[in-house]
Amino acid sequence: MIEEIRAPLESICGAVDGALAASVMGFDGVPVDTYEHAPGPEDADVASLLVEYSTLLDQVKNSAQMFAAGDLEELSIRADRVTALIRPLNQEFFLVLALTSPGASGKGRYLLRMHAPKLAEFLA
Amino acid sequence: MIEEIRAPLESICGAVDGALAASVMGFDGVPVDTYEHAPGPEDADVASLLVEYSTLLDQVKNSAQMFAAGDLEELSIRADRVTALIRPLNQEFFLVLALTSPGASGKGRYLLRMHAPKLAEFLA
Repeated sequence: MIEEIRAPLESICGAVDGALAASVMGFDGVPVDTYEHAPGPEDADVASLLVEYSTLLDQVKNSAQMFAAGDLEELSIRADRVTALIRPLNQEFFLVLALTSPGASGKGRYLLRMHAPKLAEFLA
Repeated sequence: MIEEIRAPLESICGAVDGALAASVMGFDGVPVDTYEHAPGPEDADVASLLVEYSTLLDQVKNSAQMFAAGDLEELSIRADRVTALIRPLNQEFFLVLALTSPGASGKGRYLLRMHAPKLAEFLA
């Protein structure tokens, strides 16, 4: 556990209603650190879900660049019970917050945006 | 052009600042109708981008269901210059709005949610 990464993950989860977990992961799906804040809805496997979504991220990034939409800034996937908010930190890592649906997505997006620059700097 | 589809697409684009295009598409990437409201940022090929994103939708849906996150309700992909908001209508079709980044994503999400039930009913 690296304090410079764990602290913002805890801070984000503590401030967002319905937060389940936050993680810094590589685009290869390997988590650098995952903070599990609250148990997910029954049967929902939030940790595995995030790994699964991470495998899609590369494709989304490439599609956006291919058609000149630009660099990917944020991906949000809202399912019936769990919402995932994803923000790339650099070419290698991204920050992700999982929360219950409907949850405080707006605040979640805001906090990811606020914490991203420092995390990116630390991971550079 | 089917009026029951074209009218909500025009209405959504007319009400959202920065709207570029709205479309009802099949999960196979074939558009039922696309309304192009404004030219995209230079070089950005918005129509092709939406087709490309649609190919990812099925994977996102399946991942969410596999890990018990539930049915996909909304996907939002924000790149540097173009944001795409996507809302499945049923098992076959989805509604998508492309807008400039940063644009009125909140209002866009709201309007997709409002128009989805009637479109879904028409497409059933």
